[in-house]
Amino acid sequence: MWRPLDLDTWLERRSEKFEAIKTSVMEILEAVKSRGDAALFELTEKFDKIRIDSIEVGRQERKRALENISPSLRRALEKAKLRIERFHQMQLEGQSWFKEVDRGISLGVRLTPLKRIGAYIPGGKASYPSTALMCAVPAKVAGVNEICCCTPPPGSDATLAALEIAGVDEVYRIGGVQAIAAMAFGTESIRPVQKIVGPGNVFVTAAKLLVMDRVGIDFPAGPSDIVVVADETSIPQFIAADIIAQAEHDANAMSFLISFNNELLVSVQRTILEMAQRAERRSVIQSSLKNMGVVLVRDVEEAASIIDRIAPEHLSIQTRNPEALVKLIHNAGSIFIGPYSPVACGDYASGPNHVLPTIGYAAIYSGLDVRHFCKASFIQALSREGLSLVADIVEELAKAEGLYAHADSVKIRLGR
Amino acid sequence: MWRPLDLDTWLERRSEKFEAIKTSVMEILEAVKSRGDAALFELTEKFDKIRIDSIEVGRQERKRALENISPSLRRALEKAKLRIERFHQMQLEGQSWFKEVDRGISLGVRLTPLKRIGAYIPGGKASYPSTALMCAVPAKVAGVNEICCCTPPPGSDATLAALEIAGVDEVYRIGGVQAIAAMAFGTESIRPVQKIVGPGNVFVTAAKLLVMDRVGIDFPAGPSDIVVVADETSIPQFIAADIIAQAEHDANAMSFLISFNNELLVSVQRTILEMAQRAERRSVIQSSLKNMGVVLVRDVEEAASIIDRIAPEHLSIQTRNPEALVKLIHNAGSIFIGPYSPVACGDYASGPNHVLPTIGYAAIYSGLDVRHFCKASFIQALSREGLSLVADIVEELAKAEGLYAHADSVKIRLGR
Repeated sequence: MWRPLDLDTWLERRSEKFEAIKTSVMEILEAVKSRGDAALFELTEKFDKIRIDSIEVGRQERKRALENISPSLRRALEKAKLRIERFHQMQLEGQSWFKEVDRGISLGVRLTPLKRIGAYIPGGKASYPSTALMCAVPAKVAGVNEICCCTPPPGSDATLAALEIAGVDEVYRIGGVQAIAAMAFGTESIRPVQKIVGPGNVFVTAAKLLVMDRVGIDFPAGPSDIVVVADETSIPQFIAADIIAQAEHDANAMSFLISFNNELLVSVQRTILEMAQRAERRSVIQSSLKNMGVVLVRDVEEAASIIDRIAPEHLSIQTRNPEALVKLIHNAGSIFIGPYSPVACGDYASGPNHVLPTIGYAAIYSGLDVRHFCKASFIQALSREGLSLVADIVEELAKAEGLYAHADSVKIRLGR
Repeated sequence: MWRPLDLDTWLERRSEKFEAIKTSVMEILEAVKSRGDAALFELTEKFDKIRIDSIEVGRQERKRALENISPSLRRALEKAKLRIERFHQMQLEGQSWFKEVDRGISLGVRLTPLKRIGAYIPGGKASYPSTALMCAVPAKVAGVNEICCCTPPPGSDATLAALEIAGVDEVYRIGGVQAIAAMAFGTESIRPVQKIVGPGNVFVTAAKLLVMDRVGIDFPAGPSDIVVVADETSIPQFIAADIIAQAEHDANAMSFLISFNNELLVSVQRTILEMAQRAERRSVIQSSLKNMGVVLVRDVEEAASIIDRIAPEHLSIQTRNPEALVKLIHNAGSIFIGPYSPVACGDYASGPNHVLPTIGYAAIYSGLDVRHFCKASFIQALSREGLSLVADIVEELAKAEGLYAHADSVKIRLGR
């Protein structure tokens, strides 16, 4: 049996080195910035090993993709879209408000959508129609007018179909750093956006961090991770299945198992080994299982403190009393409660976003949500009476800061 | 009479050149990263022209500051704190929720505070106790445990007192790029933070953008700006007073007046000139009035389109029917409605935050709010019945993405 990692080794392995690739990423950004479309054609040939004829994926090609996919896939995408849409609509409730807080003082917040956003949909050899939905649907719900999607060639019918279903009508067959550069700086074919969202590899993330003075981004991310919490009531097959599912993403995917019970720990490991041998993607799975860690804990406090230290992208709690643990933790991108809430469900179908902060960034950032596509304006409306309620505060603080005209702007209104 | 700028000239003048200073900012960041406290002492002597003995502002010194300020200033700070606190508490309402959306499928969002944040409070020759409140109070409301504040020396009793009133107990007499570096990388005296908020000059902002791979930031910002909208019902003295107040900030402060009425435009300009001559800070005001722009508009649509293009930090609407205009606009950091809502009110007293995106960033970013100090986790809990409702979506999409173990993790639970 293989030997899973301990917590410290696991955490060390998880870090991402943006610094090391900064220079090469900056060169690509610079090339697109200075030479536009010409650079996009060249870089696509260089990195994607594909010679493309056009940068934009035309209306015809996108419509054809929707016809090419199977009716059952189309139905599944449509159903997933509705569920994602519903969850993100619920996020908007109560976000804009305006209330009288004192006689003559009304305050509020008003949410408005961004005008133009960019979504990076990974692809290339693989195909991620679900990520297309997760990026585009919340933008639509927020009311974003222009959604600009970049996805590496050759692209897939499934991804193009998902974008059609989401109602996106601007898609480009460009990937990697060059896509981020195009959306940040603009080229002849791609107009610049206000914010770039969506997952990508370490190069894409480094590129997003390097264009932050031009455009907003969602958050940095690295390889995907999961923490599963188990006790003696957990079903080893379910947990093993979730860890295998995590492991099949790519060789860098990471899993960590926290158990209150040693027998369970042993039996999950045994089950994982058995399942891995039969799995379709067993070579990827066997590589990434080397990144699996385990720990045996005494109580929920210890479990919570480990989880907060890890700040997992996905947290699956399959114990008798999940709520007791949820209450104690602060850092987790997406939380899956109970034995019948596999992470795969959230990846595709239930509604919450699967674009989440990884490698510990859940301690600082929220997963992709409708707020990423909006910004808030504060609003205030005071009457003469309301103003007189706060006039002394303004005058006193303005004086303390030496900003006398600030005080005057109140005095003149109240005839003082 | 001086000649105000037109819109295009005004917009050109507003841009901020982070690129030009990148190299020098990176050198300072690097110095602090590699040499810690020693670099902080040296850089403070070099840039602030002050030799400091200690980096931390001790408990005694902070308590003494609170005793040193006048009782009336203390009362004003306490009142302002309560109003800021109330507004930011209102922002939290409804942000965490958990609902059954289908039989057996419960979804939600759970907001949790960041653990440790850093606030940059500008200072040096000037003193901004109000900014101290605006950064620290929302962090407290969010539930942040550790609030680390940096403010350039020599610092002022008013700022230290405001931090005491806000309940902050970690203050450092460090400013500029070196403060951002210390909070991002940590030194012997200052432990690293998860996110840095607060306004600063172009060097501070450039530094924040350059440490984004380590820590979160609120948003980039530049010189402060205001747009005032007026019509024939506006009172020229009120508008002139607001523009003079804006102009007294510093020589880079920018104002723009949009008027539906030419007479008003002329009379505001005349009033500004008169007021400027009598103003306490007339030399600063006279410099920054060179950055004032004006435009005469025909209708609310034209006004709205100009406002959206400017994306002002402060928008003051002093017309007969402000709501008609508010409905049409998308981009504004903070909106002040009616003749008795001077911006100075929002700077100090009414409650909404005065730390706002400037130089057009309001098109992308929200002003500082309680969400900047929190992150959201998504939550989902499915029963066996709930899972069976979405199982076909998961299986179909997983197959399309070639992630068979994802499908298996659902099948095994349902015994398929």
